Amino acid sequence: MTSPLQFEIECESSRTSARVGVVRTPHGSFQTPAFMPVGTQGTVKGVTPRQLVETGAEIALNNTYHLLLRPGPELVQRLGGVHAFMGWDRPILTDSGGYQAYSMADINAVDEDGVTFKSIVTGRPIRMTPEHAIEVQNQLGADIIMAFDDCPPSIDPRVGPVNQTRIRQAAMRDSIKGSYDHDARLKIANERTVRWLERCAAAHARPDDQALFGIVQGGTDLDRRSWSAEHVCNVELPGYAIGGVAVGEGHDDIVMVVRHTAALLPRDKPRYLMGVGYERDIVAAVCAGIDMFDCVLPTRNGRNANAFTKEGQLRFRNAKFAADDRPIEADCDCPACDPAGNGWPTPDGRPLTRAYLRHLCVAREMLGPILLSLHNLRYFQRLMVDIRRAVREDDWSWFAARWPRAAEGLPAELQASSNTETSR
Amino acid sequence: MTSPLQFEIECESSRTSARVGVVRTPHGSFQTPAFMPVGTQGTVKGVTPRQLVETGAEIALNNTYHLLLRPGPELVQRLGGVHAFMGWDRPILTDSGGYQAYSMADINAVDEDGVTFKSIVTGRPIRMTPEHAIEVQNQLGADIIMAFDDCPPSIDPRVGPVNQTRIRQAAMRDSIKGSYDHDARLKIANERTVRWLERCAAAHARPDDQALFGIVQGGTDLDRRSWSAEHVCNVELPGYAIGGVAVGEGHDDIVMVVRHTAALLPRDKPRYLMGVGYERDIVAAVCAGIDMFDCVLPTRNGRNANAFTKEGQLRFRNAKFAADDRPIEADCDCPACDPAGNGWPTPDGRPLTRAYLRHLCVAREMLGPILLSLHNLRYFQRLMVDIRRAVREDDWSWFAARWPRAAEGLPAELQASSNTETSR
Repeated sequence: MTSPLQFEIECESSRTSARVGVVRTPHGSFQTPAFMPVGTQGTVKGVTPRQLVETGAEIALNNTYHLLLRPGPELVQRLGGVHAFMGWDRPILTDSGGYQAYSMADINAVDEDGVTFKSIVTGRPIRMTPEHAIEVQNQLGADIIMAFDDCPPSIDPRVGPVNQTRIRQAAMRDSIKGSYDHDARLKIANERTVRWLERCAAAHARPDDQALFGIVQGGTDLDRRSWSAEHVCNVELPGYAIGGVAVGEGHDDIVMVVRHTAALLPRDKPRYLMGVGYERDIVAAVCAGIDMFDCVLPTRNGRNANAFTKEGQLRFRNAKFAADDRPIEADCDCPACDPAGNGWPTPDGRPLTRAYLRHLCVAREMLGPILLSLHNLRYFQRLMVDIRRAVREDDWSWFAARWPRAAEGLPAELQASSNTETSR
Repeated sequence: MTSPLQFEIECESSRTSARVGVVRTPHGSFQTPAFMPVGTQGTVKGVTPRQLVETGAEIALNNTYHLLLRPGPELVQRLGGVHAFMGWDRPILTDSGGYQAYSMADINAVDEDGVTFKSIVTGRPIRMTPEHAIEVQNQLGADIIMAFDDCPPSIDPRVGPVNQTRIRQAAMRDSIKGSYDHDARLKIANERTVRWLERCAAAHARPDDQALFGIVQGGTDLDRRSWSAEHVCNVELPGYAIGGVAVGEGHDDIVMVVRHTAALLPRDKPRYLMGVGYERDIVAAVCAGIDMFDCVLPTRNGRNANAFTKEGQLRFRNAKFAADDRPIEADCDCPACDPAGNGWPTPDGRPLTRAYLRHLCVAREMLGPILLSLHNLRYFQRLMVDIRRAVREDDWSWFAARWPRAAEGLPAELQASSNTETSR
């Protein structure tokens, strides 16, 4: 089997497990550690592909679940695949739809063969098996595709927070009925995920131009993570992911699980931490040896009038910004903070003001979410640029001075050393 | 008084009153006949200024009414004026707010001194006089500002269509109470508009860098239009507009009024037909000697999933586009129809398909309205490019072959001649 993906590690950090590298795919390469914006329904919300390239994104994610329901993989295939569909001739990763099938469906049922869930578009029942998830991803045609896994609720649904109603329903309807035993459910899911991975690998019809990644599960139980990593990595694949992280647990648990699990994945293959996350989570995971990230935070928070900055998020619904004539962030080069540098016909190279962004948000003008999404997407790419530089130069005190909040994710010994250097 | 605006006619059509020219303002020049996109609240909805420039727009319109209510002219002035506010260092025109004060307010009262209306943002009463409308526009700082006029309902509110409730309310509350006499109301408005224009001109505090345009009213009564044109043009100003057109009457009435009125305006000053319109209306007005247009159609219809094409509008809610692999319009160079030409990372220079645009609209993705707005804005600019070419080359049969629907606005004799040439 020719691998559709090459991963080259260019540099490794001496004091952490971080590494900088490049992943080559049939649609070009991307630098790692990489942050992948999420294009849920075949579009990163509010952003054109040209604008997305200009944020520095080199790979985008699409959700199989959403494209399966609408417009359907046959149509996407007929239109030339997901790259042509959305006008993005660069690397694309599709998830398998498993997570959404569990978390978004009001009604679902899990058995050894697959999952049945209700379409959020038509209300009709949809049957998804490992074979079907791979067939759909083969039709979509992304460069990296993900195994279909069994995703039980991470927190015992009988004791979880009340807003986890749908997860609770899902748990109650799955294979363990009546007397729900959360621990037994996690064990079954962990074992089933390996069996399903083998079925995914066997069903994969385009191994020469689509790289299938396996997903390690196991929640916050490190023994279960170890078991999962061993058995998932027994299936020879171009890359591996860590799933079931940042689904409600705190930063410390995220770090614990990622440090433990990343070290169990093959060193010479890309490691992808799914759905993460906040800046300090990303930094901690990079130091644990993670190479790829995705998260909806930049666009979701942008649509909700929130801008990421190195000092924390700015919430533009807050009246204190009403007459604020500063840019979102002084050293940012996004279209809002540096319109002249982004080809805008703006007077005297002036930035757009926080007052203007607040006006757009309060007036419910589309340009508000658009500009805040662009700012946030650029913010995460700037974070990755500086992370890669910190790894290359092994200079975390430079990084910590520049990204004080993100640096909270650094290992304690590096934080101490950077503090020492700063106080010298 | 130094004029803040120079108008140079480069070429006149021999068979029509059309002319091609250029208007120079303190923020650069724009070619005429010009189509001005509408940036209601300090943004053309869904479009960045860079994207707007790339559609070919050379001047944008902002609504004083909306900016007065939110965020307020003092703030816009403090932030450097409306150009800096929205990041658009090119010509801007602001309307006076008169039309919106009448048409959008649930409650308003008109007297000889001004209008009182209820803010659609706060619900508080707002008092607007000619002096105040000019003061606000002086604060906003656009290159071209508009006189504040008395805008009575164009159609007798006692016989008008039922959806004109607000206009009817407005009429009932204005200066003629009790026994409403529509004709008398129009006469008063016409005369008052001239008195208010004189007050606007006297109040104008920035005549050296803001060009004040007067507005000719008179509805569909040609005698009233003649009277208004004479008295409005007696006030020496850098340009004149025709208001109260395309407010419910049909194409034939629009053409009748514009042909009659445009001919009464000074030849050597720009003529602006406010709020118009559809393609054939624009073509008819150009042939009558109009130089400037504005309309919300490109963005409003784009947001409603409709795309303009030379063959008519495509309504992307229609299921017939679900698997249509063609671009919106084959010869269009907008980002949707020619993504590669617009810097997108699109495969093989392929256009985005109608199927993809329909998917975006059906999935309620922001990119749908964004792309359809960009397409429609570019469509109207392409129309203006071809109109200017037709005037320069005095070749309306070329134009009619290219824009069959827009050419319905050509004078009958040109349609006949172009038909003849086509059938030769």
